[in-house]
Amino acid sequence: MSQDISRLDLFIDRMVSQRASLDFAITQTADMTGPIFELGLGNGRTYHHMRQRISGRDIFVFERAVASHPDSTPADEMLILGDVRETLPASVERFGPTASLIHADLGGHNREKNDVFARFVSPLIEPLLAEGGLMVSSDRMYFETLTELPLPEGVVEGRCFIYRR
Amino acid sequence: MSQDISRLDLFIDRMVSQRASLDFAITQTADMTGPIFELGLGNGRTYHHMRQRISGRDIFVFERAVASHPDSTPADEMLILGDVRETLPASVERFGPTASLIHADLGGHNREKNDVFARFVSPLIEPLLAEGGLMVSSDRMYFETLTELPLPEGVVEGRCFIYRR
Repeated sequence: MSQDISRLDLFIDRMVSQRASLDFAITQTADMTGPIFELGLGNGRTYHHMRQRISGRDIFVFERAVASHPDSTPADEMLILGDVRETLPASVERFGPTASLIHADLGGHNREKNDVFARFVSPLIEPLLAEGGLMVSSDRMYFETLTELPLPEGVVEGRCFIYRR
Repeated sequence: MSQDISRLDLFIDRMVSQRASLDFAITQTADMTGPIFELGLGNGRTYHHMRQRISGRDIFVFERAVASHPDSTPADEMLILGDVRETLPASVERFGPTASLIHADLGGHNREKNDVFARFVSPLIEPLLAEGGLMVSSDRMYFETLTELPLPEGVVEGRCFIYRR
């Protein structure tokens, strides 16, 4: 009976780490009023979690095509539809550096592709974050001015990354 | 800040409970040689987990249409393609009561629909299980001759169910 890590193990680590990182980031930024950006809606579980844990801040969702659970689908005016390569630069003009929290789970199955995408998208995300704001990502990001934070309890090393401006 | 349970919380509870229940059932049936039936492949994470943790037993996968991760796709001869309403009765003829472990995660988002389906499918699953064999399910099942077991450590009440013949 091999005890190698399975895809189920990896997935659970990722979900648990995502939740612990988000809960940490939500608490850390609780005094800020700037909007929250969820990059990638997917099934909507993380969005649902944020909506339940956060009050008094707008949560905007960036998504190419909405395919979420009905319980976890944002109102039209909170949805920023399109490819993030276009919607992120447009949002810098619209919002400026105001985001209190940005969460991204953009990655797919292919680790190398995820890394290429993370490198591409990092400079598009960076100018959106307010002073003191946090960015939580399932992939390592490549920021010039943000600081990587030590991971809070419950986060598995390498499954989640947290950055602060 | 509400601390109501989110869909992310529920999902993590389900995955963690599934893994703990499966690991328990794999250990409990380790001395048996009969095949293992995975009902519903989905993304293939649970199948991948079982393949890593189990040796010396065949693992057959029942699925309508394979859409799993390439790492977690069974060989053709281990795949029983079709609607379980038909493939389960056909498997009773093919295998008889020989399964050492059956795992089912058939449910969708709708709780009531899941329950209707669990009631329908329970008598189709029941005759496949060998004496001493275990059945692990994400939904409550309706068996006539199987005994519901107390949940092992790490399983959240109501997120997983374990039955023994």
